[in-house]
Amino acid sequence: MNFIGIIEKKRDKGKLTREEIRYFIDGYVRGDIPDYQVSALLMAFYLNGCDDEETFELTMAMAESGEMIDLKEIPGIKVDKHSTGGVGDKVTIIVAPIVASCGVPTAKMSGRGLGFTGGTIDKLESIPGFTTVLSEEEFISQVRDTGYALIGQSKDIAPADKLLYALRDVTGTVGCVPLIASSIMSKKIAAGSDAIVLEVTHGTGAFMKDDKSACELARTMIDIGRKSGLKMSAVITDMNEPLGHAVGNSLEIIEAVEALKGKMDPDVQEVIRVIVPEMLIAGGKAGTVDEALKMAEDAIASGRALETFRKMIKAQHGDPAVLDDYGLLPQAEIVRTVNADREGYLKIKDCAGVGECVKILGGGRMTKEQEIDLSVGLILKAKNGDRIKKGDPILEIYAKSESDADEAQKHYMNSVGIIDTKPETNTIIYSLDD
Amino acid sequence: MNFIGIIEKKRDKGKLTREEIRYFIDGYVRGDIPDYQVSALLMAFYLNGCDDEETFELTMAMAESGEMIDLKEIPGIKVDKHSTGGVGDKVTIIVAPIVASCGVPTAKMSGRGLGFTGGTIDKLESIPGFTTVLSEEEFISQVRDTGYALIGQSKDIAPADKLLYALRDVTGTVGCVPLIASSIMSKKIAAGSDAIVLEVTHGTGAFMKDDKSACELARTMIDIGRKSGLKMSAVITDMNEPLGHAVGNSLEIIEAVEALKGKMDPDVQEVIRVIVPEMLIAGGKAGTVDEALKMAEDAIASGRALETFRKMIKAQHGDPAVLDDYGLLPQAEIVRTVNADREGYLKIKDCAGVGECVKILGGGRMTKEQEIDLSVGLILKAKNGDRIKKGDPILEIYAKSESDADEAQKHYMNSVGIIDTKPETNTIIYSLDD
Repeated sequence: MNFIGIIEKKRDKGKLTREEIRYFIDGYVRGDIPDYQVSALLMAFYLNGCDDEETFELTMAMAESGEMIDLKEIPGIKVDKHSTGGVGDKVTIIVAPIVASCGVPTAKMSGRGLGFTGGTIDKLESIPGFTTVLSEEEFISQVRDTGYALIGQSKDIAPADKLLYALRDVTGTVGCVPLIASSIMSKKIAAGSDAIVLEVTHGTGAFMKDDKSACELARTMIDIGRKSGLKMSAVITDMNEPLGHAVGNSLEIIEAVEALKGKMDPDVQEVIRVIVPEMLIAGGKAGTVDEALKMAEDAIASGRALETFRKMIKAQHGDPAVLDDYGLLPQAEIVRTVNADREGYLKIKDCAGVGECVKILGGGRMTKEQEIDLSVGLILKAKNGDRIKKGDPILEIYAKSESDADEAQKHYMNSVGIIDTKPETNTIIYSLDD
Repeated sequence: MNFIGIIEKKRDKGKLTREEIRYFIDGYVRGDIPDYQVSALLMAFYLNGCDDEETFELTMAMAESGEMIDLKEIPGIKVDKHSTGGVGDKVTIIVAPIVASCGVPTAKMSGRGLGFTGGTIDKLESIPGFTTVLSEEEFISQVRDTGYALIGQSKDIAPADKLLYALRDVTGTVGCVPLIASSIMSKKIAAGSDAIVLEVTHGTGAFMKDDKSACELARTMIDIGRKSGLKMSAVITDMNEPLGHAVGNSLEIIEAVEALKGKMDPDVQEVIRVIVPEMLIAGGKAGTVDEALKMAEDAIASGRALETFRKMIKAQHGDPAVLDDYGLLPQAEIVRTVNADREGYLKIKDCAGVGECVKILGGGRMTKEQEIDLSVGLILKAKNGDRIKKGDPILEIYAKSESDADEAQKHYMNSVGIIDTKPETNTIIYSLDD
């Protein structure tokens, strides 16, 4: 086999065999195939696509390029959840303790953020002392003992994906459904769960800009997962405005804890009420959506969900007192309230622009090495479509300095508008029937 | 400007501006843009193409990435000739002395071969003592004094093309008309002639497999040349069988010298009688094809063409006695005659296969560093469509060893056939009217 022949085959719209895909992935991970050949193949993939079989083989080759986590020692059906991300997306932090407290073992492996705000790991690190560095044994025994553990992704998981993602990032080959799907699914398959609930976001604040491409991505990932023997389901959610009211690491922890105490924004609640039943049904704990919702309501009302979160924080050396005293979380130097300069309806024009404010404030990273400020962020005092009077507070900015706050405020005001007619509001959930 | 944005633009079928193309070429030559980004762009070029303006800008950026030869000191219209190559293609060696002896100053820069057989430079190096290493001053003064000089391409000519060609070669992005055209024309433009006659070959022994793609390549190159201010013309020639009867470095020199003495195979003559008039007309020495043919016939019959070749060889330290005694050229150890094992018509099935025999014999190189054996090769004793009887000689193999000859013979017999019905013979010349 020779790699130029493989490039030429994909260039000419041919279908790569399992052996050719393995030759590519294994050779690249070993360092035998240079970046400049792989990037030509990636562009050919981008422009000529690949079919379901090729995408599956690519995913499996990437998954098997590193460690395959074995969760068999944990009894029960292990259910993972993955979101393609968005602005203010704290869903994982809320749903994991709920489903864990309902008896679904939750062995969660999460990433750090690269973009506007931090990822789930960054957000949880706002909790003083909290660590996500556990050995595989500690991780598994914690899930067995407390029902819930959350760690950062091991560097040994899908090393091929790490290499390929870094190359795609600098060669204009990121936004291609088969490559995105195989990247996500290779890590999920290697992480060892039995079932995966996908949340695929779309809109101005998400990677996929429209629901059609989000559905295509979801269907591709479902197909890969099922072929590999996993139970799969997906929910398509709108990300044309931030989810909930907090955007920023520690601010989102507060919103998530409030949710576990029963106080949720309607949009957050809508997403939670779709994701949690999917997970409880996949985990064999509920037979119907109604039953699952009943269990979830009970888990929150009884305080069991919050207790599960508390146990997890404690087990991972975090200070659980933050759940009762948010003053223990990192505090921003400055809190500025921004008021409306006219009356009308608030319209979020660019959800990504709202996320970028947090990056401006120092709460997001553009390179893996960058330190982020966990205290900064935004509290949205008005959401898309809200009627506001002149002088009403529309935003709180949590910043390190006045100049940062100035810049973020300016950027925010370019991302939203106050208009005379009520803007259309979006349906948050599209269910993917299959 | 940022290079990822340029990749994405071409990926999305956008048109690159002059500035973007300069940014790419200049940055790549400087070493600021890595191979892995350039190869992604090359694949996007390959799959999405580029229009005439982009191709022109790419060519000029590549031409201007290095030295631009100035031939103004040589009086008259300097006419260059370029062939896209083929098996047994000795046209340059024949036409250059003819047109030079008719008063067109011939300042020729040629390449070494990479493929089945050597290039023009390799072939001329069969002549003992002959060197193609001249300084630019020596080169120009030789053209002024003797009318004809031929040197190897300076490493300072179009360095961007050298880098890009090497990368295309290993990333499956060679066979793309705008990239081929800009590669050839960047070197021709930098070489400083006033007019260029192109010979674009197609068929099983050429890079372009059909006349449609050959015409497309010719038209693209003509368009680039004219935009840059050059006089341009092109001839499309068939390369479904070798040109003439000799394939191999010193064997082709003999055939070329014989041609200058007036003995040409009909197919060689047909090509020469098209190329020479194009060059004499472009050089302002003839007004019509008939006039040009008359001049060429006279140059050969009078011995002036051969004399010009002799002077060039002498000026470049070669032994001109080879023109009278072919025994002074490198001699192969073994000469084997292959006879027909049945009667019928000879059919060349795969012209490239015939060329590969010379590579098997050691007369072609696959890497730039490889030494080649100038003595080996083939003499075709029968051409496509010839009627042969059992026992007739069909081939002479000039080899270093019996085992090499065995291997070449086997390969040759797989590339040709003796069949019962006369095969179609191809029209050699397609003229490109424009």
